[in-house]
Amino acid sequence: MAGYKRYRKDSDVSYALGITLTFELLKFKPEYVTRIFIHSAMKEGETLEQLSELCSERRIEMLYTDKIFHVLSQKENCYVIGEFRKFSCTLNKDFSHIVLVNPSNAGNMGTIMRSALGFGLNQMAVIRPAVDVFDPKVIRASMGAFFSTEFVYYDSFEEYREKFGERELYPFMLQAKKSLHEISPTGVFSLIFGNEATGLSEAFLDVGTTVIIPHTDRIDSLNLPIAASIAMYEATKGGFNS
Amino acid sequence: MAGYKRYRKDSDVSYALGITLTFELLKFKPEYVTRIFIHSAMKEGETLEQLSELCSERRIEMLYTDKIFHVLSQKENCYVIGEFRKFSCTLNKDFSHIVLVNPSNAGNMGTIMRSALGFGLNQMAVIRPAVDVFDPKVIRASMGAFFSTEFVYYDSFEEYREKFGERELYPFMLQAKKSLHEISPTGVFSLIFGNEATGLSEAFLDVGTTVIIPHTDRIDSLNLPIAASIAMYEATKGGFNS
Repeated sequence: MAGYKRYRKDSDVSYALGITLTFELLKFKPEYVTRIFIHSAMKEGETLEQLSELCSERRIEMLYTDKIFHVLSQKENCYVIGEFRKFSCTLNKDFSHIVLVNPSNAGNMGTIMRSALGFGLNQMAVIRPAVDVFDPKVIRASMGAFFSTEFVYYDSFEEYREKFGERELYPFMLQAKKSLHEISPTGVFSLIFGNEATGLSEAFLDVGTTVIIPHTDRIDSLNLPIAASIAMYEATKGGFNS
Repeated sequence: MAGYKRYRKDSDVSYALGITLTFELLKFKPEYVTRIFIHSAMKEGETLEQLSELCSERRIEMLYTDKIFHVLSQKENCYVIGEFRKFSCTLNKDFSHIVLVNPSNAGNMGTIMRSALGFGLNQMAVIRPAVDVFDPKVIRASMGAFFSTEFVYYDSFEEYREKFGERELYPFMLQAKKSLHEISPTGVFSLIFGNEATGLSEAFLDVGTTVIIPHTDRIDSLNLPIAASIAMYEATKGGFNS
């Protein structure tokens, strides 16, 4: 058996670290699961039995080894790891989207997925250059929302716009024309957010309706997952699909 | 000169790590600054000159040493550290408050301070047991909002309530009676949030008007800084003091 390696962007597989995430993986993406690793410190009991049953039903191999945990997990209480093949997703024209332009932080992306799923939004376009969506840090920060999210990469915003431009587009930026208070989308929409440090470029001033979340001048900006979550909260106020 | 030690809860001083935070410290709490440390990799130039001027105006000692950086900073590009004496704050009856009951994560507390300042709320009550507000991680996550925030600890929510109970109290909890959509505070208010893992106890069902941020059942809850930020956004919609 080959030694275990750290996760890399060009790996064919990624990992759900921890029992909770592994259950989410088995529930929502069972067809992609390759192996489940169990640490020797994992206690016998109901949870392990439930996991074993799911794995035998689906003929998924369970491996008892501590080695991979040393390589993949910094957390102390991670005793189960779910390995899965990377999958591809599609976005749907009939659903609203989150568009992340050049996101650079894996934790932020996962946190946004969690909020998005909470507001009935599970379709995400990611404009390159961007953080690797399959990074286990994204999955962990998403608290499992990752496995219920459809995400597709585009090389440019124009590429995304050609496919999905026929909808309400809301770029969020400090130079925006409208306040979030004034916005109430009536149809399918896309909420567009820029990079953590640089925001959206001025080119977005000509895209759809630019929006700002009003705040005092005592801070430079809200942090990205918070701005995105406030925007999603407001945009879905009329009701969301649960 | 004594060796430098890690920050501890019982230290008399705490630290602003990095040049941006140190400028915020010098701007908003100059009277508490004890020393400024400069790393040998700090470049000569306008920033350093500006810092030197501020320090000489206020007769603050500037120390050129790399040692303390090894002890206090894990970040690579931290070349300035501002040391300051811990100070005490007061809350004002005429202002709205954020009340954090048993917060356990320093980063979350800082992130909440940043959002709060953005929505014109800079008064925070912290109910023990709770994370140490002076932890440099709080200061860093706050992006400097820490130095513009008034925070006071209380041993119990009852102690806080005795002093400030005569206002609109909004505990945020999943078992709440009202949706955030229905809330529009008219006077001075307090937004109350529980611990990251456990939320607020059932006892809060009898406090003021309990509020829930509606979300789908696909997630267990929103994360704390996000829930708090959405609540602050909505509660201050009528206008905030900048």
